[in-house]
Amino acid sequence: MKSHAIIAAAFLLSTAASAQQALFNRQDITSPQVNNDGTVTFRLSAPKASNVTVSGDFQAHPAVMHNDNGVWTYTTSVLEPELYSYSFKVDGLEILDPANIYRNRDIASYTNMFIISKQEGDFGNLYSVNDVPHGNVSRVWYDSPTLGTTRRMTIYTPPTYEDGGKYPVLYLLHGAGGDEEAWVSLGRAAQIMDNLIAQGKAEPMIVVMTNGNANADAAPGEWHRGMYKPSFMGHNDSRAKSTTEAAYQDVMNYVEKHYRVKRGKSNTAICGLSMGGFHTFAISKMHPGKFGYIGLFSAAINMGGNDNQPIDQRIENDQTTQQQFKELFSGKNTPQLYWIGIGKSDFLYTQNEGLRKYLTRHGYPYEYHESDDGHIWKNWRHYLIIFAQRLFK
Amino acid sequence: MKSHAIIAAAFLLSTAASAQQALFNRQDITSPQVNNDGTVTFRLSAPKASNVTVSGDFQAHPAVMHNDNGVWTYTTSVLEPELYSYSFKVDGLEILDPANIYRNRDIASYTNMFIISKQEGDFGNLYSVNDVPHGNVSRVWYDSPTLGTTRRMTIYTPPTYEDGGKYPVLYLLHGAGGDEEAWVSLGRAAQIMDNLIAQGKAEPMIVVMTNGNANADAAPGEWHRGMYKPSFMGHNDSRAKSTTEAAYQDVMNYVEKHYRVKRGKSNTAICGLSMGGFHTFAISKMHPGKFGYIGLFSAAINMGGNDNQPIDQRIENDQTTQQQFKELFSGKNTPQLYWIGIGKSDFLYTQNEGLRKYLTRHGYPYEYHESDDGHIWKNWRHYLIIFAQRLFK
Repeated sequence: MKSHAIIAAAFLLSTAASAQQALFNRQDITSPQVNNDGTVTFRLSAPKASNVTVSGDFQAHPAVMHNDNGVWTYTTSVLEPELYSYSFKVDGLEILDPANIYRNRDIASYTNMFIISKQEGDFGNLYSVNDVPHGNVSRVWYDSPTLGTTRRMTIYTPPTYEDGGKYPVLYLLHGAGGDEEAWVSLGRAAQIMDNLIAQGKAEPMIVVMTNGNANADAAPGEWHRGMYKPSFMGHNDSRAKSTTEAAYQDVMNYVEKHYRVKRGKSNTAICGLSMGGFHTFAISKMHPGKFGYIGLFSAAINMGGNDNQPIDQRIENDQTTQQQFKELFSGKNTPQLYWIGIGKSDFLYTQNEGLRKYLTRHGYPYEYHESDDGHIWKNWRHYLIIFAQRLFK
Repeated sequence: MKSHAIIAAAFLLSTAASAQQALFNRQDITSPQVNNDGTVTFRLSAPKASNVTVSGDFQAHPAVMHNDNGVWTYTTSVLEPELYSYSFKVDGLEILDPANIYRNRDIASYTNMFIISKQEGDFGNLYSVNDVPHGNVSRVWYDSPTLGTTRRMTIYTPPTYEDGGKYPVLYLLHGAGGDEEAWVSLGRAAQIMDNLIAQGKAEPMIVVMTNGNANADAAPGEWHRGMYKPSFMGHNDSRAKSTTEAAYQDVMNYVEKHYRVKRGKSNTAICGLSMGGFHTFAISKMHPGKFGYIGLFSAAINMGGNDNQPIDQRIENDQTTQQQFKELFSGKNTPQLYWIGIGKSDFLYTQNEGLRKYLTRHGYPYEYHESDDGHIWKNWRHYLIIFAQRLFK
């Protein structure tokens, strides 16, 4: 890249406008540094700070960093293969690691990220971009007549899609506060699919990641509401003409029209996390026989009725839901897989326990996966890995 | 969105795991706030800080912020319609605005961004996501036999593309330190095209944003080299089997095979900034008659020969380049538009002056646009707006 060298030389010789200077003013520090022994070292240059800590999901509490001539340093214990998030706190002010460009947004907060991988097939390996064929990821605008607007979704097509042929489809739904970016950023869905397909563990499939906020057309900043600050509750504009569940047919219509899709329940799956787990719960029983594979990841099981009653009782009391479940699990409609995953300490654990009781009582077949931890992305990525390997086989 | 309320209530009642807590710990502050009078107010809560400044491309020097009970505040003068970037410095430590999720990466540095718009057609309006039809943006992997690898590019298809028909193509190239993400993030290319098309100012076109670093397959973190820190010089892996210029045929082959593309030089354009301006300069003369529209934005004109000689002399001394220019500007090969744009204070100004001298001396037609300022994205966005309106008409 001779041209690089020439431009850089010219650049360095040039008079320094502020935008030009900015390139050379940043910290020249390596952080995070993944060490050979499986520990990770963080570094931050902050000579005037009196207290610096690092918080991350690799440890229970913030760790005080050590001041070495103005460079604050901390080394973790040995970490298991996983994707980790962290941030610093400098005299009470939370900041990101300026040496690490890899960041994820969760609602209105950013954290830095890094990945630990030790061997093929471990979680870190499945989240990494490896030297394997990659699927394309597209941000696609589609008409939703039900919501009366044009909306954005993210679509992953498998590496062989451009060669032709038809493919099964997984509809993959995010949680409250998320959007159509959540599964590809926090969820590493494209990397997970690329790697599972390359390793022969999952079938090549189209993955459709929709926006579950009926009041929004797209992720914050990506539609005409402008650069608003996202919140867990979504924004307050109540313009939505319908619900995400009722409008989901518009998504499927678009995908089936514009993509080379294998039809039928053996080729159609849906899953979602938290609010998206509720959407999955609702959409799947609105369309009996449509989805052969249904996955509820830490799902919110929102039932009307008396809040003091357990979920299974509230389902029993709801004639519509009762009837929907009867049809969903009727003869050839019955899904190949109705999968429920949740963490032991998830605040939605009891709701899911109630749903399981209901399904068991009625003899509706399902599989249950219980993991450690609570309502966190680590679990949802794991659930996607497990669920994706079960599909279309 | 009843389900939101229920989940949120359950959420607030739940035991607080660290990931759950993170949602509620952040600053509840509005920043930046665009005021009705056209000024902008920044705010940062940093009670323990003793000095806080804000730097941005809306003013020549960092401004000291005012401490109001631990909330540091600063209001700008009235700003013209434009996209602006900024960051804070807290006791010498550069940080982003935690209240603003909108951020752009330029090489290894992030800045916050905001947009000022006053009316349709102004720069801020053209950079905004307005209530107009949107094109799809896809990250696409293509084989490059010349480079011996599979690479990633970003492709914008106009809003009507899904309805059928063939479209002209603009190849849009980034500068050193950039990648296939640069034009859609820093360059706001999708918004510019959506808005120019909606306002009837540009023809619907496919825009192909390639990665100009022959040693990389994709943007940092998006290919198998992992999560490396990007640099202006690119990374040091010298595996590339060829140059970006020589390998560009692979891009065009892929696009012409997989997209509904109108052929011929009346339907084919190329432009690029800085290093991408050099690539445009080189690629366009390697393919006489291929491109009807050629745009050099603050281009690096890298010529071999004696560095002490002016560029026009070095072109005169280079037989290959002389011959290429002769063919490029020969009869029906002659581009409809050979466009050169540069800022008065750009460090590449003299190089472009040399190119202009050469073109003028030989009677090769070109258009020249000279703007204020130097080697900055503001200029490149403006040049794209000007250039895109001239294409395919």
